[in-house]
Amino acid sequence: MEQKTSNKEITSRSRDYSQWYNDLVLKSGMADHSAVRGCMVIKPYGYAIWEKMQRVLDDMFKQTGHSNAYFPLFIPKSFLAREAAHVEGFAKECAIVTHYRLKNAEDGSGIIVDPEAKLDEELIVRPTSETIIWNSYKDWIKSYRDLPLLINQWANVVRWEMRTRLFLRTAEFLWQEGHTAHATRDEAIEEAEKMLHVYGEFAEKWMGIPVIKGVKSANERFAGAEETYCIEALMQDGKALQAGTSHFLGQNFAKAFDVQYVTKENKQEYVWATSWGVSTRLIGALIMAHSDDNGLVLPPKLAPIQVVIVPIYRNAEQLVTVDGKVAEIKKSLEQKGIIVKYDNDDKQKPGWKFAEYEMKGVPVRIAIGPRDLENGTVEVARRDTGEKQVFSITDLANKIEHLLSQIQENIYQKALDFREENITIVNSYDEFKKVLDGKGGFVSAHWDGTAETEVKIKEETKATIRCIPLNAHEENGKCVYSGKPSNKRVLFAKAY
Amino acid sequence: MEQKTSNKEITSRSRDYSQWYNDLVLKSGMADHSAVRGCMVIKPYGYAIWEKMQRVLDDMFKQTGHSNAYFPLFIPKSFLAREAAHVEGFAKECAIVTHYRLKNAEDGSGIIVDPEAKLDEELIVRPTSETIIWNSYKDWIKSYRDLPLLINQWANVVRWEMRTRLFLRTAEFLWQEGHTAHATRDEAIEEAEKMLHVYGEFAEKWMGIPVIKGVKSANERFAGAEETYCIEALMQDGKALQAGTSHFLGQNFAKAFDVQYVTKENKQEYVWATSWGVSTRLIGALIMAHSDDNGLVLPPKLAPIQVVIVPIYRNAEQLVTVDGKVAEIKKSLEQKGIIVKYDNDDKQKPGWKFAEYEMKGVPVRIAIGPRDLENGTVEVARRDTGEKQVFSITDLANKIEHLLSQIQENIYQKALDFREENITIVNSYDEFKKVLDGKGGFVSAHWDGTAETEVKIKEETKATIRCIPLNAHEENGKCVYSGKPSNKRVLFAKAY
Repeated sequence: MEQKTSNKEITSRSRDYSQWYNDLVLKSGMADHSAVRGCMVIKPYGYAIWEKMQRVLDDMFKQTGHSNAYFPLFIPKSFLAREAAHVEGFAKECAIVTHYRLKNAEDGSGIIVDPEAKLDEELIVRPTSETIIWNSYKDWIKSYRDLPLLINQWANVVRWEMRTRLFLRTAEFLWQEGHTAHATRDEAIEEAEKMLHVYGEFAEKWMGIPVIKGVKSANERFAGAEETYCIEALMQDGKALQAGTSHFLGQNFAKAFDVQYVTKENKQEYVWATSWGVSTRLIGALIMAHSDDNGLVLPPKLAPIQVVIVPIYRNAEQLVTVDGKVAEIKKSLEQKGIIVKYDNDDKQKPGWKFAEYEMKGVPVRIAIGPRDLENGTVEVARRDTGEKQVFSITDLANKIEHLLSQIQENIYQKALDFREENITIVNSYDEFKKVLDGKGGFVSAHWDGTAETEVKIKEETKATIRCIPLNAHEENGKCVYSGKPSNKRVLFAKAY
Repeated sequence: MEQKTSNKEITSRSRDYSQWYNDLVLKSGMADHSAVRGCMVIKPYGYAIWEKMQRVLDDMFKQTGHSNAYFPLFIPKSFLAREAAHVEGFAKECAIVTHYRLKNAEDGSGIIVDPEAKLDEELIVRPTSETIIWNSYKDWIKSYRDLPLLINQWANVVRWEMRTRLFLRTAEFLWQEGHTAHATRDEAIEEAEKMLHVYGEFAEKWMGIPVIKGVKSANERFAGAEETYCIEALMQDGKALQAGTSHFLGQNFAKAFDVQYVTKENKQEYVWATSWGVSTRLIGALIMAHSDDNGLVLPPKLAPIQVVIVPIYRNAEQLVTVDGKVAEIKKSLEQKGIIVKYDNDDKQKPGWKFAEYEMKGVPVRIAIGPRDLENGTVEVARRDTGEKQVFSITDLANKIEHLLSQIQENIYQKALDFREENITIVNSYDEFKKVLDGKGGFVSAHWDGTAETEVKIKEETKATIRCIPLNAHEENGKCVYSGKPSNKRVLFAKAY
């Protein structure tokens, strides 16, 4: 079903990082371009990772009290305009539905849009759903008894991006968007922070990607938010990637859609809101964070195949013997919940298969042949380090289970070490520019807190404030750009 | 979080079946209307049912070898025109994206569609995805080794329906669409039939709805199919509802998108195709098939809450005692995988709660008070029959588990009995019309096999051929309309 990918060249990271990424996505069978500008096809191997991500996140959302629901794909144009900041941010590049019928052209030239089927009000394909959701919340929330309202939606959204890249920035993407309503400001802030920590835990424990938690500067805030919390990750080329955001929306949407509730004291109050989301962009982050010049490196917890078994044989008789032993091994691994694929396809040689599963990032490869059977051993190769070991078949399932945890841990540790090496503290604008032009990564610098300085730094260096870390400590210093006083360092970086 | 619904009047079925259905959907908190014409909001209680359906179906698809993937929301207008029959069926009422940017009006009157951001080719929001998917398959399928290609997609689709009803017919709906490619005609037919049986098993075993499996007449076939298989269910008002379809598409889409493969014998051949889908419409069928004038009746296997426990008490002290015992009972039920809700909310009385969970169709209600504690008993009420019994607490979890299976079985049996009573064999057009005007249901009649007769019958009676049952036996007869010879009976009905 998958197209065979092995022995196809991948551009090396050092030669062209961007091309390396593209080669990986296409040649590992994760995704494909489509006939629609900026829209991708997520192929089965890529979608299997998304399904695993969804399952884990969905469980985390439910454990924190959220329910799923589904709201319309379309947003009336006027809704976007209701919240002043939101309209500035989202009423720009988007897909606009203006008509609702096609018909055959009278001259027989084909099908055309029926000019008589024009909508009275244009519909926008949702770029995000705050407005359509808060329009429903107006009917659903009457009293403090209806709060908190904790809802999540899994959906597709469309933002008409001009420059697109598979997974990282596509016109249509898949995501989840949580939208919650609360009786108090404090409770809403607590919710926004709670979901940030859920995202952080998911990134670190499941994706194996260390993240820095922080808040965005006013410039980089979500359009309509009072505070945007984010997790920021570092890719291997030294660029940052925003991996998830959680917004405290204040009463902005409640006021825009007139959502008030009756308090216990029988007073009318506006509701407090949050929204938070992660998207298929995470798959791009996963690929970029860990993979190498031979292909994908996937963390075992999210790998669609965790262990691949490849038989080594010279003839059909030998294969039958190996098949029998592998059936036992496979069963013992599956009893531990390990996802195993046995590839005894006779049309391809072992060397081809080794390259294929290396490309696909399968964490553990087991090779087994007649000599192994005699010795009661198998050859086990780790994808993350490339290391090979001979394991006794006795108690193999336990050893493989342990190895998978080691790989998960090692992938995270490697990314963490890289990240730590690539946070550079600078105290002057010269140093700042030198680091950005050289090693890249996060630059920790004092900033005077003004949008003006932020904009100028961006113009001059392409670096943006990725976040003001939550754990930043008070420290008196001077803004690297303006020399004005600053009381904490923020993280700058070039970003995806 | 849910709005409280109890003590709200539901219109009775006998008074106005259609209003009864609408009341149920809204008042049980399943769905809501939205601000966008024809689009609904699926609320958490309704969405929880959809999630259960998805999980079960998805497992069934994977067990039959399918993988999930995701294709673009948008289809270039010209793609719809590639397959002649398909364009007739789908290039009609649909949502058409013509522009990709909004801007502020120069006169300050608000946001407007930027006339300069007009797409060269309009994009259609997918009404179904054959065309965009087969355009990808062209790149993915080269050789017999790439076949069969067995892919499913969970997605939203849009058909600009003029008359809409919650769940049953909405402009946007959620569904899954399987799209498979095969080397031979026989294999594709086998696949289409296999998936029909998967749908049939899901409807009967999980939804508790008996279905008739058959094929559509040429008139009712999917646009672009050579054969459309379907499952047809009967609702309580005697109208039929198509609950799922599976199409054998021949080589129509392979030819339209030039998808050929190299056979083992090194020849070029066009690929054979199927597609199949079920949608959120199934939720409408579920509601209509089983519910009564007091609210929803849900089959235990798909109920978001399977057992609700309501405490009976006079004071806080009694509630504490009951809480303790319920914690034990709840744990023992949950250990069996039963989904339990304990509603000890002090703001509502037991009577109110009884009505609330009756409305929501919770299959089993357990009431427990201080006297029950003394006696070591609980009161158990079945939603399907309304019957109440006193159960000893000893071994309660086993008894409840057994009761849930009984309810599942009873709901199915009741629907089956009703269906069987409402298949009427007729041998004349007078009888035919009399049944349709009277008791309704399926009418089993001889038909001459012509589209002309089918159309006339529909014009005169509003009944359509629901299907030619797969198990119809050969029987010589005369068409009830034309008197021409016929060799098997087909099923007519008025339908949703």
